[in-house]
Amino acid sequence: MSAIETIQFNDTGMVPAIAQDHITGEILMMAWMNKEALSLSIETQQAVYYSRSRQKLWFKGEESGYSQEIIEIFTDCDHDVILLKVKQNGGIACHTGRANCFFNKLENDKWISIADVIKDPKEIYG
Amino acid sequence: MSAIETIQFNDTGMVPAIAQDHITGEILMMAWMNKEALSLSIETQQAVYYSRSRQKLWFKGEESGYSQEIIEIFTDCDHDVILLKVKQNGGIACHTGRANCFFNKLENDKWISIADVIKDPKEIYG
Repeated sequence: MSAIETIQFNDTGMVPAIAQDHITGEILMMAWMNKEALSLSIETQQAVYYSRSRQKLWFKGEESGYSQEIIEIFTDCDHDVILLKVKQNGGIACHTGRANCFFNKLENDKWISIADVIKDPKEIYG
Repeated sequence: MSAIETIQFNDTGMVPAIAQDHITGEILMMAWMNKEALSLSIETQQAVYYSRSRQKLWFKGEESGYSQEIIEIFTDCDHDVILLKVKQNGGIACHTGRANCFFNKLENDKWISIADVIKDPKEIYG
C-alpha cells in the first residue's frame, strides 16, 4: 500500500498540512490538501495545497513566487495531519506579506500583530 | 469584542490548534478546540482541546499527567488556526508514548517511525 493510501482524509476529502521552516522550526502556515495535492507535493517536492475558497489546487507561490521546497514530509500518530519541513523561497509565507501566518499574539484579550509586513501584498499580487 | 469572538470556528464549531514547544520549536501535536476549549485554555493557561472521538472536552494530561503549560497563544492571518507555544510536562506529547506526534517520516513511499517510545502507553494509561 502506498503511503498516501494510509492518510485519513476527512469527510470532505481534506487533510490539514502544516508547513514548518526546516532549519528554524518556525511554523509558516497551515493549509489543506486533498489527495491530489498531497500526491503532487510528494512527486514534485514543492508544496501543493487545495484552496477550499477557490476550490482548486493551489501551487504555493504560483502567483506570489514564494514557493516552498519540501525537505521532509511527516504524518502524525493518527495519520490525519501532514507536516512539511520546507525551505520558504523569498522568506514570505503569508499572503499579508509577512514571513509567516502566525503573527497575531494574544495579549489582554486582544490579538496583537507582532510581525512586520516585509512586502506590500499589492506589490506581491498586483 | 473579545479575542475569541474573532476566531473562525468551522461549521462543526471547531478550530485546529497546533502545540509547539516554546523553546525548541518542535511541533508536538495538532488537535481541535471548540469555543469552550479555547476559552478554558486562555483562562487556565493549560491546553484544553475538544476530543472529537470522545465528544467531550479534553484537558490535556488529565489521564496521562502530561499536561501542557501555555506560554503564548497565536492565531493566523485568517483567524482560523490556533498556535499554542507550550511547555510540555513530562516531555511526552503523544498518546503513543513518544515526545511528539509527528514521528512518521516519508521515505520511498512508506512512513518510517523515526522516534523512540519513551514510555509504554500501557504504563501511561494503565
